[in-house]
Amino acid sequence: MGKPVTTSDPADEVHDAWLPSESFRALGARRVLVRGGGTLVETVVREAEAACERHGGSVRHQAHGDRAPADSVPGDGGSGDGTPGDGAFDLILALGRAAAPSWAAAGIERDGTLGAEGYALARRGGVTVVLADEPAGLLYGFFHVVRLGEAAFADAFAAQRHEPALRERMLDHWDNVDVHPVTRQVERGYSGGSIFWRDGVARGDHDRVRAYARLLAACGINAVAVNNVNVHATETRLLTDRLGDVAAIADLLRPYGIRVHLSVNFASPVALGGLPTADPLDEAVRSWWAETTRRVYASIPDFGGYVVKADSEGQPGPFGYGRSHAEGANLLAEALAPFGGTVHWRAFVYDHRQDWRDRSTDRARAAYDHFTPLDGLFRQNAVLQAKYGPMDFQAREPVSPVLAAMPATRLAVEFQATQEYTGQQWHVCYLGPLWSEVLGFRPWGPDGRTVAEVAAASGGALVAVSNAGADRFWTGHPLAQANLYAFGRLAWDPRLDPIAVLDEWITLTFPGCSSAQSEAGERLRGTLHAMMDESWRTYEQYTAPLGVGFMVRPGHHYGPDVDGYEYTSWGTYHFADRDGLGVDRTRATGTGFTGQYPKPWSDTYESLDQCPDELLLFFHHVPYTHLLHNGSTVIQHIYDTHFSGVERVARMRLAWEQIEADGLVDRDLFARVRDRLDEQLRCAREWRDQINTYFHRKSGISYQRCADTGACCAEERRPDENGASHCRCRCRRIFF
Amino acid sequence: MGKPVTTSDPADEVHDAWLPSESFRALGARRVLVRGGGTLVETVVREAEAACERHGGSVRHQAHGDRAPADSVPGDGGSGDGTPGDGAFDLILALGRAAAPSWAAAGIERDGTLGAEGYALARRGGVTVVLADEPAGLLYGFFHVVRLGEAAFADAFAAQRHEPALRERMLDHWDNVDVHPVTRQVERGYSGGSIFWRDGVARGDHDRVRAYARLLAACGINAVAVNNVNVHATETRLLTDRLGDVAAIADLLRPYGIRVHLSVNFASPVALGGLPTADPLDEAVRSWWAETTRRVYASIPDFGGYVVKADSEGQPGPFGYGRSHAEGANLLAEALAPFGGTVHWRAFVYDHRQDWRDRSTDRARAAYDHFTPLDGLFRQNAVLQAKYGPMDFQAREPVSPVLAAMPATRLAVEFQATQEYTGQQWHVCYLGPLWSEVLGFRPWGPDGRTVAEVAAASGGALVAVSNAGADRFWTGHPLAQANLYAFGRLAWDPRLDPIAVLDEWITLTFPGCSSAQSEAGERLRGTLHAMMDESWRTYEQYTAPLGVGFMVRPGHHYGPDVDGYEYTSWGTYHFADRDGLGVDRTRATGTGFTGQYPKPWSDTYESLDQCPDELLLFFHHVPYTHLLHNGSTVIQHIYDTHFSGVERVARMRLAWEQIEADGLVDRDLFARVRDRLDEQLRCAREWRDQINTYFHRKSGISYQRCADTGACCAEERRPDENGASHCRCRCRRIFF
Repeated sequence: MGKPVTTSDPADEVHDAWLPSESFRALGARRVLVRGGGTLVETVVREAEAACERHGGSVRHQAHGDRAPADSVPGDGGSGDGTPGDGAFDLILALGRAAAPSWAAAGIERDGTLGAEGYALARRGGVTVVLADEPAGLLYGFFHVVRLGEAAFADAFAAQRHEPALRERMLDHWDNVDVHPVTRQVERGYSGGSIFWRDGVARGDHDRVRAYARLLAACGINAVAVNNVNVHATETRLLTDRLGDVAAIADLLRPYGIRVHLSVNFASPVALGGLPTADPLDEAVRSWWAETTRRVYASIPDFGGYVVKADSEGQPGPFGYGRSHAEGANLLAEALAPFGGTVHWRAFVYDHRQDWRDRSTDRARAAYDHFTPLDGLFRQNAVLQAKYGPMDFQAREPVSPVLAAMPATRLAVEFQATQEYTGQQWHVCYLGPLWSEVLGFRPWGPDGRTVAEVAAASGGALVAVSNAGADRFWTGHPLAQANLYAFGRLAWDPRLDPIAVLDEWITLTFPGCSSAQSEAGERLRGTLHAMMDESWRTYEQYTAPLGVGFMVRPGHHYGPDVDGYEYTSWGTYHFADRDGLGVDRTRATGTGFTGQYPKPWSDTYESLDQCPDELLLFFHHVPYTHLLHNGSTVIQHIYDTHFSGVERVARMRLAWEQIEADGLVDRDLFARVRDRLDEQLRCAREWRDQINTYFHRKSGISYQRCADTGACCAEERRPDENGASHCRCRCRRIFF
Repeated sequence: MGKPVTTSDPADEVHDAWLPSESFRALGARRVLVRGGGTLVETVVREAEAACERHGGSVRHQAHGDRAPADSVPGDGGSGDGTPGDGAFDLILALGRAAAPSWAAAGIERDGTLGAEGYALARRGGVTVVLADEPAGLLYGFFHVVRLGEAAFADAFAAQRHEPALRERMLDHWDNVDVHPVTRQVERGYSGGSIFWRDGVARGDHDRVRAYARLLAACGINAVAVNNVNVHATETRLLTDRLGDVAAIADLLRPYGIRVHLSVNFASPVALGGLPTADPLDEAVRSWWAETTRRVYASIPDFGGYVVKADSEGQPGPFGYGRSHAEGANLLAEALAPFGGTVHWRAFVYDHRQDWRDRSTDRARAAYDHFTPLDGLFRQNAVLQAKYGPMDFQAREPVSPVLAAMPATRLAVEFQATQEYTGQQWHVCYLGPLWSEVLGFRPWGPDGRTVAEVAAASGGALVAVSNAGADRFWTGHPLAQANLYAFGRLAWDPRLDPIAVLDEWITLTFPGCSSAQSEAGERLRGTLHAMMDESWRTYEQYTAPLGVGFMVRPGHHYGPDVDGYEYTSWGTYHFADRDGLGVDRTRATGTGFTGQYPKPWSDTYESLDQCPDELLLFFHHVPYTHLLHNGSTVIQHIYDTHFSGVERVARMRLAWEQIEADGLVDRDLFARVRDRLDEQLRCAREWRDQINTYFHRKSGISYQRCADTGACCAEERRPDENGASHCRCRCRRIFF
């Protein structure tokens, strides 16, 4: 980390993200003992050694600790084999049988296993111990100690057990190997090129990939799909003759406990195998996949599995052969099963050639309608991967009902760390609170399980589309690193408070916040919280209102275009007319989508009175004068939130300007954030003015009340010298 | 012509357009004498020889006819040098002094000259004569005889003199040498690749370029700019180290009387010359242009000159140096003057970064505001090239007022044969009537001059952006060939009836119409007229209403998107709200654009009562209920014309289907046209439904009257089972 990637110009150095040297200070100043062997333990040793070298501590490694004598006395000054006793160390990380002596020393009752990735953590008698059954657990425990900083070595604390809620915590990279003529190097990528690929070949930047793996391990991610789910010609070949490129990446990720997955082309047997069909029930097709998969595992023994986008937005799939998606998924699952691999089968299947004139077709219904009849038909190593909402990663959607409707299917919830619809890493938009809401949503009401619990119990996964790229700050907007970090942490433990996770990220990423121990440090922390805690809701305020979604520029999806998708085939409409707007998805008079939810939500969403304000226009078509629970009319709410959203961004920008003087933030990072805040403010204003003007022109209803003064201006608007219309109160808010 | 270009598959043969072998039958069956020498006369001889070889006639060429003895007796059986007398020929084409004997024979009074391109034509005593002072005249006269067909050899007719109204009749090719990442090989090209360039190099298809030159000469075009006015990096170098490519094209066009022009980068002194500035008043810059231009003429002695798009849509220009556009244009004019070259300076200068909120800025004003202060300041060899309308090649715009406001400036009127905004050669849209309206427009009222007369008197030009490309039918849509043909013919004589020109084109292009002399031939001619005569007005009917323009999908400009440009920086708005739409460009309450016209139009356009219906929304913002002169309300007119436009296209398509059986149309051409009519119908329906639905949603006003039945249905619309709204009358027209 921190090493120049291509040149020695410091401006080209890759940013350390949440693992700057400073974040290892507490651990690196200690005497560390690592007990255990194997690749991942060696990673821990190397990490500890690097930290101690920088900060004055020391590391002792008992590589063969697994065979350490059972009679070594915990806590004493030495052991029979000449190793100093545990008491000679400040931190002990011990694996498997090697850890046995330390259990008692740490006062930890050993009941049950810690699992493949879990660890126990305690501090007693001046020694901090991390114990794990398996190497990955030791690695995660190590990074836990890093996160704790000095707190890991202060007061004693009782044993804590940590295990990930979800077995698989995965990033999907929508990276192309070739530069695609439309989607370029990274589809929906806003962070420069790909970490893995450049201009048709593997990028070969091993330092960068290793650094990435290290960041991911530190936040708990354990799986990475290395290519775009839209699998083009060159990318198809990663499965066979270009497999070496994938194996090379796997070699770099493996030391950090990360398995590689591959997005594959369902038509591979035709495209690569020369077969006349890719029919999942064809024997030759099955053999081809079996043999091809065997070869993959010969190269990459810990290969994670396949990711498939089939019959979606032009990708091939089982429908082409009259087969079901279960038959399609099972074809690949069967090939992967002998090797312990998994197929992630995406549920993002809908008609993208819908007739906008046809109000009976509802894209929101698609995943449920396609997949719930298949519940129970998927093989055990097939995971159905559904976007968190029924549409497409909007800033506000209800939770996808498919997640509550597949009890006999392994489910992965897919998030989008890359900010396609949430500001494309030009806007500050911390997504932790959005993801947390989704993960904590209880489809069966307050007494039922959460979405996270459903996914975990199904043996499923959490997945995010990665927002990282070859950009030196990893994510274009430096503050967007927090989304990557938060995804990993929430995937490990969905119950974490997203603001606490953000605070963790701030502490790690901006050591000035803590190490300065000063007013300035607190100011910086406060500023970051002020900018980021509510940034998702701020983004929601100035963009499409009340859950109706979209209203973005077609194609690139950045910036406003209220009617941009209104008359297209994409199934994303708002149906605004002069009287009102919103999509009637009720059972009573609409598309019936509300019926896809179990009670109580099927009733809550159906009811105009009970439907939460923030989702009103997702479920109902209402007049502009409809009264919200918050007391505003819909039209007034639109106006108010759009004015308020921009004001919040302006404050955000001002706050950032003010931290410059304190000098606790790297100059380049400061400048990058400042420039992006300028753009965010410009763009937020554009959203405000377009949305407000559009609805003012359409509804003819004037702005009624100043959000800031509470004063009323019920009079008609009047044109000023430029033809713009002002309301008459002193707030001087403007429509165009 | 007709020769395979790359393979011998007949399907790859380039279409003959308006010069099929059959169109030379009358001439080719005659005894032809050509008198005169030089390149262009040799072209005439070669053309005549090829025709006679195919159709049984004969050609005699007196290359040194210029020195023919003065005493040869016209009309007798022989001459002193052994040449048969004129009476031995059916057709005599004679040049300059060589023509002298023929003047009297043809009974033509020789008064004044015929000019550089004029010719006289007569038939007397069984001999048809074409006489010219200069070689180009002979070539144009030759093609006149081709157009006449058998009529050239039937009844005697008195002498006609023909001279082009405009000295320069030019095509601008928006062809890129490199494939541009956004605009591809040809910007706004809908006919395959470029005739001249492919993938960064000259295409080197000499046959194709020659065939093109021949088609152009046959309709009267005498100048071609061979590269895009947006001059990118590679194209900039055509001026210097890539000049050889241009010279090679010039060599191919020269035999058909066509001069080559080059679009140049105003910043060439910097980009190519290594100078620190391109300031037009800088002495080194002037020297650079002088020397560079001298070199151009050393390679291409008949080089036409430069075309410049400066300070427009991102192109560099004199504004960058604080200089005026006259100073910019004069810089190049000065360099060209010693060699007789001309600079075409485009008047398409406007602010493409306009704030849509600012209703005081009016893009329509831009050319006038920028250029009229410069009237009289341009050098004699500078031509100001203005688009015919104040906006950008819309299907309906008023004539640009700049054309009536620059009395001391040479003016070129620019049309767009390539159908950027008129259906992109997927839609039948014969533009002759549009161009004819513009050319015949009288800015000073019925007693004043026409636009064509203004341009001609100024010593200006008519220019069209070419619609031809590497497509085997030249223009994508075979019927779009008519636009290229009509442009040439109207540029030669703007007073021609565009429908008569179309008929000429039909006769030449579809010999089956005449040669069959049958009912089927007449049916074909009738069908083509039925499809094409009104096709521009049909297109206007189903697209943006009443002159308001745009409403196209941003970027590619194909298909509808009512609000696509409404909130952008491009200055193209309709300002529709729930009460009405249109742009107030009056002096009284709007942008004042009407004041750029002389009387009577400044008053006509200003007046809501007098403004022509078809331009109403260009000049006025009116309520949907405003009554048009035609008795409809604006909203009802929108509905009616959109229904009617689609019905017309449906009839067009049906008519075309019915001519297949007669077999007078080449199968490939038939199929190409049929496929494009399918797309036109689909697209027209999309326009209809989007426009009508948009305005129905916005106005809330129902369809009031059936265009086809005249019945009334003032009732409210009601939703059908699909949620679509039907009016209740039996016409069942649908809103969505």
